[in-house]
Amino acid sequence: MIRVGIVGYGTIGRRVADAVGLQKDMKLVGVTKNSLDYGVQIAKQRGHKLFCMDKERFGSTESEGTVKDLIEAVDIVVDCAPKGKGRENKDTYYVPAKVPAIYQGSEKSDIGVSFNAHSNFNQAQNQRHVRVVSCNTTGLARLLHLVNDGLGIRRVKVALIRRAADPKEYKKGPIDAIVPDPIGLSHHAPDLKTVLDVPINTTAYKVPTTLMHVHDVFIETINAIDHEELLELMDAEPRILLADPRLGFKSTAQIMDFGRDIRIRGDIFENVIFKGFTTTSREIYLTQAIHQESIVVPDNIDAIRAVFGGDRDESILKTNKTLGIGKLIMS
Amino acid sequence: MIRVGIVGYGTIGRRVADAVGLQKDMKLVGVTKNSLDYGVQIAKQRGHKLFCMDKERFGSTESEGTVKDLIEAVDIVVDCAPKGKGRENKDTYYVPAKVPAIYQGSEKSDIGVSFNAHSNFNQAQNQRHVRVVSCNTTGLARLLHLVNDGLGIRRVKVALIRRAADPKEYKKGPIDAIVPDPIGLSHHAPDLKTVLDVPINTTAYKVPTTLMHVHDVFIETINAIDHEELLELMDAEPRILLADPRLGFKSTAQIMDFGRDIRIRGDIFENVIFKGFTTTSREIYLTQAIHQESIVVPDNIDAIRAVFGGDRDESILKTNKTLGIGKLIMS
Amino acid sequence: MIRVGIVGYGTIGRRVADAVGLQKDMKLVGVTKNSLDYGVQIAKQRGHKLFCMDKERFGSTESEGTVKDLIEAVDIVVDCAPKGKGRENKDTYYVPAKVPAIYQGSEKSDIGVSFNAHSNFNQAQNQRHVRVVSCNTTGLARLLHLVNDGLGIRRVKVALIRRAADPKEYKKGPIDAIVPDPIGLSHHAPDLKTVLDVPINTTAYKVPTTLMHVHDVFIETINAIDHEELLELMDAEPRILLADPRLGFKSTAQIMDFGRDIRIRGDIFENVIFKGFTTTSREIYLTQAIHQESIVVPDNIDAIRAVFGGDRDESILKTNKTLGIGKLIMS
Amino acid sequence: MIRVGIVGYGTIGRRVADAVGLQKDMKLVGVTKNSLDYGVQIAKQRGHKLFCMDKERFGSTESEGTVKDLIEAVDIVVDCAPKGKGRENKDTYYVPAKVPAIYQGSEKSDIGVSFNAHSNFNQAQNQRHVRVVSCNTTGLARLLHLVNDGLGIRRVKVALIRRAADPKEYKKGPIDAIVPDPIGLSHHAPDLKTVLDVPINTTAYKVPTTLMHVHDVFIETINAIDHEELLELMDAEPRILLADPRLGFKSTAQIMDFGRDIRIRGDIFENVIFKGFTTTSREIYLTQAIHQESIVVPDNIDAIRAVFGGDRDESILKTNKTLGIGKLIMS
Repeated sequence: MIRVGIVGYGTIGRRVADAVGLQKDMKLVGVTKNSLDYGVQIAKQRGHKLFCMDKERFGSTESEGTVKDLIEAVDIVVDCAPKGKGRENKDTYYVPAKVPAIYQGSEKSDIGVSFNAHSNFNQAQNQRHVRVVSCNTTGLARLLHLVNDGLGIRRVKVALIRRAADPKEYKKGPIDAIVPDPIGLSHHAPDLKTVLDVPINTTAYKVPTTLMHVHDVFIETINAIDHEELLELMDAEPRILLADPRLGFKSTAQIMDFGRDIRIRGDIFENVIFKGFTTTSREIYLTQAIHQESIVVPDNIDAIRAVFGGDRDESILKTNKTLGIGKLIMS
Repeated sequence: MIRVGIVGYGTIGRRVADAVGLQKDMKLVGVTKNSLDYGVQIAKQRGHKLFCMDKERFGSTESEGTVKDLIEAVDIVVDCAPKGKGRENKDTYYVPAKVPAIYQGSEKSDIGVSFNAHSNFNQAQNQRHVRVVSCNTTGLARLLHLVNDGLGIRRVKVALIRRAADPKEYKKGPIDAIVPDPIGLSHHAPDLKTVLDVPINTTAYKVPTTLMHVHDVFIETINAIDHEELLELMDAEPRILLADPRLGFKSTAQIMDFGRDIRIRGDIFENVIFKGFTTTSREIYLTQAIHQESIVVPDNIDAIRAVFGGDRDESILKTNKTLGIGKLIMS
Repeated sequence: MIRVGIVGYGTIGRRVADAVGLQKDMKLVGVTKNSLDYGVQIAKQRGHKLFCMDKERFGSTESEGTVKDLIEAVDIVVDCAPKGKGRENKDTYYVPAKVPAIYQGSEKSDIGVSFNAHSNFNQAQNQRHVRVVSCNTTGLARLLHLVNDGLGIRRVKVALIRRAADPKEYKKGPIDAIVPDPIGLSHHAPDLKTVLDVPINTTAYKVPTTLMHVHDVFIETINAIDHEELLELMDAEPRILLADPRLGFKSTAQIMDFGRDIRIRGDIFENVIFKGFTTTSREIYLTQAIHQESIVVPDNIDAIRAVFGGDRDESILKTNKTLGIGKLIMS
Repeated sequence: MIRVGIVGYGTIGRRVADAVGLQKDMKLVGVTKNSLDYGVQIAKQRGHKLFCMDKERFGSTESEGTVKDLIEAVDIVVDCAPKGKGRENKDTYYVPAKVPAIYQGSEKSDIGVSFNAHSNFNQAQNQRHVRVVSCNTTGLARLLHLVNDGLGIRRVKVALIRRAADPKEYKKGPIDAIVPDPIGLSHHAPDLKTVLDVPINTTAYKVPTTLMHVHDVFIETINAIDHEELLELMDAEPRILLADPRLGFKSTAQIMDFGRDIRIRGDIFENVIFKGFTTTSREIYLTQAIHQESIVVPDNIDAIRAVFGGDRDESILKTNKTLGIGKLIMS
């Protein structure tokens, strides 16, 4: 039984906490909160024990102790703190306490071994500091690992059309603009290369939407493509879903609407590829949608097992089963 | 045991179907679908029996029969078809089959007795054709019934700032504009008067958001207001929630984010009033947010009971308990 | 000939600079820029002399001197610096240099005499520090001054539905939310009272649009209303435009589209009232749209003349004529 | 003197009308309107003669005659009617009247010779029915013609991130979604090939913005790239602008804001390429923004001259000079 603590109970932390709670080989000890907002009600409603980052700020009555108390009681921490805070927490708390930790993709890659369950599980085995790559990189790693294994990749170009804010944010824009972010090639390609070695270049744009990122993917393959075989390959991978526009999946709006009916928080842990994409003899032109709030959740669970020497395929199978991955039907 | 059929398995139909399934005194016989979109997967995943509106369009293999087969097997229909279709269905199916029916607020008010659980339950008792008023009218009826009972209402002016499209819609705008809809006084005041007799005028605007309607409410009361007593009055009504901005409830975004963590589909069946509103001796200036997709669900359930002569308070209590209304804490 | 300097060449500054240039009794000496962005190109294209706020930051080659050099060469400054900077500039530059100044409505009201051309021109005559009230307050002052003069005002309630960001901004949101800002009564009513004494309460919301603010206005009048006479009253005021939805003016989108065809930058200096509003015997329910970027431009020009003892009606006439106010036809 | 009539006085028609009015070798005879909306005021304000498409609908007093009267008085028509109407107008009016016509890119390509001033002017010389390709295709043709001439193109992949509605539209969405439109390869590549023969594939997405289309362009060249030389090549082409983000051009928002200060309607007739794009030895990764309302205006003017046997370079020079193309400085 792996005892797990979650540091940071925000968008990712809430989801990983629930996912840990569903694993038979793990036990959720508690979660930390930084301030007394509505996340406290959510944690309470789920019966999570609350620990505070800063006693003064948090107030006295609500918490079971501080982040240090939580760390002492766990075998591993999943750090879901905001960008840059993971590094601070590593130095301040985890290294001194000699506790291993999982970090999120918003931390710099030198914080530990970068990780994606499908593409490099084994590199994280028995490591103490592991970084689950970001939502966009996770989505790219899953897809490109599959295509690389199946067809060989000669070259990839992806344009990432990014949601500019999460659904809960109300101060971030733009309201009516498209923002190249950055101008020129983006960091997503080099970030992907920390977990998967394929020749890729990426560009990225922010647009005024909150629901999902969209990847415009162009792949040149080494081997010839059989479209039906490629669909079967995708269909066989539970963390990839094919969405059929004839069933109403015309945009990110319907995907998230479907998610709301099927899973709590409307989470779509899977890459969603729009069916009807184009292939030529050695080229793939496809579009995938990535639910930025939840896609990394299964990989966080797998990363925990990797740290304790778990087996890749066995972990993925367990995670998929407990999170209901492989059951959704979108085509 | 009231046997219920749902005609129209869209935004409202899906939710009412689930709510019916939670009632001990009701049994969901089945739902109708008009086309083979992803709603079919949702219905199957929930184990609902599917009936089709149009056999040819629907195909042969999926359905248990047609809408006529469904109607024969039920004691009452809840019609959740798109605007105007309820009237057609009444004439084509329900009246000939002598089955009572509940309609939605997008139908014209002469389709039956207009209904809101709190303000005029008894007028619908033992009626055969009952129309649950729209999301905006339901939100107004709940609030103003409460204030009218508690303080007496001399006059109300509401500006409705409406979400222009539901989350699943992708063709409706505006993208960057504010639309007076209509110019001059809106239909919401006369619609409210079909269920609650208070002096009110309303104006309405469409704005580029999908999450919730927002009501800017100005009430002049007959009796003097005690702010704390008013808060207690609101707190005592389970279908009204007070949201405290100090907990992070700063806009409709955080309300719906909270909803996603707590209820399937993120539904908020309750009026959400932002705490910190202003009162003077006989004036209230408050803002409430209305989740257009789900607020009418409890009233649909109550309307079913009203048709079969049920008791108002008993019905509201049952509905609240089964739907978890009265348990959320937002302040 | 009044020699005018503009401090701050942003959204307002650019417009006031052009407007000053059109006045026969004024001369634009120059404008200050804080950084070397595209505003510099705009200023050059118009032949404005450039002065810099900070020589180091600005670089050496572009400017004719510093802000101090500009101030020495003018009779009055129009300060269009960002919120709070006007106060700093007053203390640092204008008071020591004994130069009178006009400020914008984002500055606190104690910076000088608050000003609206129609409602309190005379209070600013021969004052040295005058604050033109904000876009929203200017729009309210014009309308309510007119109605108060014509019909007497017993009470006003306005819900302001505000554009959340200007067209040129790309970081501000929300993207998909409605934000009560603030919860409870807003500052617009007290701000209006600095220039016009009417009984008013205001509430305000931010919504995801960039084009115009919209005011939902409810007025209770003292005298009985004749709808046609009220329309004529409005029609007779050049700074108020009636827009007829039958000509396509259905939302803020078409108003600004029309503006783009008619005036440089698409500026609409006038209040735009949607025709077809509702009146009862002593109540007005109307909607006006306010172009936040330009509505205060004529009042800035009038404020300059007020400081030098000019006559109200004569100034308004001159300003209207030079800016083309009174010529647009929207109904 | 070429006598020109404009059929359809909407987004494109208004702009082409003004542009025709600026040419010394052309005379604007009049424009047609289909309904009595605010476009009538705009036409009047500019002194354009108005003709009506449908006398009954239009009313009697406003027009100088019907579309047939206009056609009789001109040497050429520029048809700016909505999608599909150009074909109708060709069959109903232009062919019977034996008048040559220019059409817009929303018409099918078999309506006449497709045209882009830079890439295939000569193919349209002395033709009677010429189709100026759409805004997106025009933007691609200009850029790729230049790169093809300078470096040779081995392959192009473009992801078009499209504004979903024009600024004046208020009914079109999405509000909060990204829409692959279509799924798989888009029609833009085949459309481009009607005017320029380069190996290209395109994909396209609609996003919730109104300002500009954005092209994510990946070009593989035949010859080696010198980045500075490429910049100079672009700089030398007046219909291409380089926008420097260090001057504040960070998104489509600032480009259009700049446009509003410089040209009536804020028109940006030029392709705007964000400076700071990436090149490798034989690859270009760049982003260009396309003002969908105005980019085809110069090409419409050039198309008129092509029909009458004009010379390509001479026409482009005249058009550029009269429209102020080549004068904007964005870097």
